[in-house]
Amino acid sequence: MAFGQKLEQLTVPADSRVARTRADVARSALAVLTQEGSDALTHARVAEIAGYSKTTLYSHWPSKIDLVLVALDALGDMPHHEATGDLRIDLIAELKLFRHAVIELRLDRVLIAMSQWASVETVSRLRDAINTNAQRPVRQMLEKSFQGPQLEAAISMLAGVVACPSLMFDTVPSDDVIEAAVDMIVRSD
Amino acid sequence: MAFGQKLEQLTVPADSRVARTRADVARSALAVLTQEGSDALTHARVAEIAGYSKTTLYSHWPSKIDLVLVALDALGDMPHHEATGDLRIDLIAELKLFRHAVIELRLDRVLIAMSQWASVETVSRLRDAINTNAQRPVRQMLEKSFQGPQLEAAISMLAGVVACPSLMFDTVPSDDVIEAAVDMIVRSD
Repeated sequence: MAFGQKLEQLTVPADSRVARTRADVARSALAVLTQEGSDALTHARVAEIAGYSKTTLYSHWPSKIDLVLVALDALGDMPHHEATGDLRIDLIAELKLFRHAVIELRLDRVLIAMSQWASVETVSRLRDAINTNAQRPVRQMLEKSFQGPQLEAAISMLAGVVACPSLMFDTVPSDDVIEAAVDMIVRSD
Repeated sequence: MAFGQKLEQLTVPADSRVARTRADVARSALAVLTQEGSDALTHARVAEIAGYSKTTLYSHWPSKIDLVLVALDALGDMPHHEATGDLRIDLIAELKLFRHAVIELRLDRVLIAMSQWASVETVSRLRDAINTNAQRPVRQMLEKSFQGPQLEAAISMLAGVVACPSLMFDTVPSDDVIEAAVDMIVRSD
């Protein structure tokens, strides 16, 4: 292992090594956060999963907040559905993708972790950017039919159909419930 | 202080002393959770705020989870609005009370803390009970006009109007947005 690392230092430029370490740690930190919860997100645990020393971790990401921030790095772009132009079909598809992300990626735990540390300015700014980005496709779809308070209400309501059951009861809505929600919004257009 | 405590032990029955200690600690733990966040919820901090020794705290509430559970004890019943029978007026009043509880009691932080520790069975059961209870008035109002998937969708959507902006962006909806949301639901009746 030590030999492998030395050999690598001779052949890989420093910049790519740093970038790769960062990507490895980000992926591992996100995995700990979503699979084991925010209390498990410690330097020791991330070091273990990522296969780096605790010293390496502490030198690049000294605080717990740094681990949270680097984990969010690994989130990447949320998958989105290619819009068909039919508002009902497109909204249902987006909500099913959101539900999928809660089940598969435990996006609900990411939301919780971001809220939990939002008193830290850097986390709160990153959280706002991530959530704005996540809502963009639905906002763009709804903007054609709604504006002002109605637009803001519709966006929160559709987010709530998936977010509320998962955050409040650890369940996700069935297809029927997603479709009923979209119908209530689309019909009020 | 020590003298006061001894005197009190002679005059107050043991049961009421235990109940009072529990109530003091519950109130203090909830205050730390909502005002300082879940990371601040430690035995040392709650002991300081409640005015008891750390030893007393550890002996009754040995783990961090016990502190979470006792904090939830102090939540009490959420304030609810006296129903007028007009669905639109009653739903708007309930959502404004929910918004008030987010602003004044930081109910969003309680929601986050309950989700954060929901992998612990006792927390998850208590969370389900608290959230079911919190949603009951809105559910009872909507049950007269909606059922099945539409009822479930409407409940999550109305919760989402307040919960999503607070959890995702640390903001609350304006009166206009709350009214627009209720109108979209009531109109689809």
